[in-house]
Amino acid sequence: MRTIKLILAYDGTAYAGWQVQPERTTLQGVLEAAIEKLTGVPTRTAASGRTDSGVHALGQVVTFNTESHHPVEVFQRALNAELPPDVAVLSAIEAAPGFHARRDAVRKRYRYVLYDGPVRDVFSRRYAWHVHQPLDVDAMHRAAAALAGTHDFSSFESSGAERASSVRTVYDISVRREPAPREEFLRVEVEANGFLYNMVRAIVGTLVEVGRKARPESWPGEVLEATDRSAGGQTAPPQGLFLVEVEYP
Amino acid sequence: MRTIKLILAYDGTAYAGWQVQPERTTLQGVLEAAIEKLTGVPTRTAASGRTDSGVHALGQVVTFNTESHHPVEVFQRALNAELPPDVAVLSAIEAAPGFHARRDAVRKRYRYVLYDGPVRDVFSRRYAWHVHQPLDVDAMHRAAAALAGTHDFSSFESSGAERASSVRTVYDISVRREPAPREEFLRVEVEANGFLYNMVRAIVGTLVEVGRKARPESWPGEVLEATDRSAGGQTAPPQGLFLVEVEYP
Repeated sequence: MRTIKLILAYDGTAYAGWQVQPERTTLQGVLEAAIEKLTGVPTRTAASGRTDSGVHALGQVVTFNTESHHPVEVFQRALNAELPPDVAVLSAIEAAPGFHARRDAVRKRYRYVLYDGPVRDVFSRRYAWHVHQPLDVDAMHRAAAALAGTHDFSSFESSGAERASSVRTVYDISVRREPAPREEFLRVEVEANGFLYNMVRAIVGTLVEVGRKARPESWPGEVLEATDRSAGGQTAPPQGLFLVEVEYP
Repeated sequence: MRTIKLILAYDGTAYAGWQVQPERTTLQGVLEAAIEKLTGVPTRTAASGRTDSGVHALGQVVTFNTESHHPVEVFQRALNAELPPDVAVLSAIEAAPGFHARRDAVRKRYRYVLYDGPVRDVFSRRYAWHVHQPLDVDAMHRAAAALAGTHDFSSFESSGAERASSVRTVYDISVRREPAPREEFLRVEVEANGFLYNMVRAIVGTLVEVGRKARPESWPGEVLEATDRSAGGQTAPPQGLFLVEVEYP
């Protein structure tokens, strides 16, 4: 039995998220169908984490076990030929037996893309959240600093998930405007040892309140301390969110 | 009677091109429907030029005449509210009476985006042509220089259009690789006083033969001199093409 590790990019627009669901088109579903077509055997895959409907990935990591003897280059090429055009296998390697994309992950980075131009950008409508007010990116960046470090992030966790603990460590969080000619796009980048359900989208929804001057820069830190989801801003919509990369020991 | 000049951006993926056609969804069709909804009067629009199915615009110019007294800001806002999310009015101004987007255009710029990474880029599948071989961008740039200036561009004109003359003046043509992290994307930019049918796509299909070393750098100049469409490379697919801007006196 071999363990294969894939790095996937996908445009999540057309999918009901990562996880297999009956009667829905999911990323896990199309990937597992492609693997079965290649190996002839139904195969369960594990991702570093689920992504929700409409959320994208630049570097999702997926593992699966197989008895197949195909070289990894063949896996990559054959899966890319089989997968739809909005999913791509960026790399395929053989991992240590038993390596698991979710359990072995030590760090993940997400990006959230905002657009604050006065007129909609037709090319980014599936890949950014259009906020119809100019955002103060420096105020958002300073406010975000309060979220760095190890905290109980309950205020940034949507209900519906059951977790042993809401404590996570944010190693890096930044808010930057992209260079010209894309200066109407902002990137929120968050790197952490793990993420609660909707955590990045709740953080972004809260930082946007600072960016549009509806709340002071001190507010996201106060929301964090409240350990209560209702204290924070809205959950930002899914289309701006990208899973950028996953790190392993 | 007033003449209104609009600058439009659109994602052409979902459209059967600019021009109104029965039973097809076209950009002119959705724009004219939006104007009629706003003014109550069926209104014919003129674009700087037609774009084909799947071709995009960053700065298409459109004019129309109207008896409406709405301020131009109201036109812009109301049209954006009415238009689908893949079309946007970037600006609306009142032009000199009788100004015409096509007849008065003196110069246009098109961009063609190529992608030569080994694995497909899921986010650019509607906005670039994926060439499955590394392209020699410097060779393409040098070869393109032969097309600058005033020439009979018959070798880069698809049949189907009837024009008085195939002579056009190319003011600027360049092939550049985008800076990191987008270094697997190339941009062909062409500025001219006018374009023949499929001219940019025929030029790109020809330059790609140089880029992938199937033809020498001297070939595009020889194709030009042949004044015969069958002498050149394939017509590049529509999804890489963007009308960037249109200039007026």
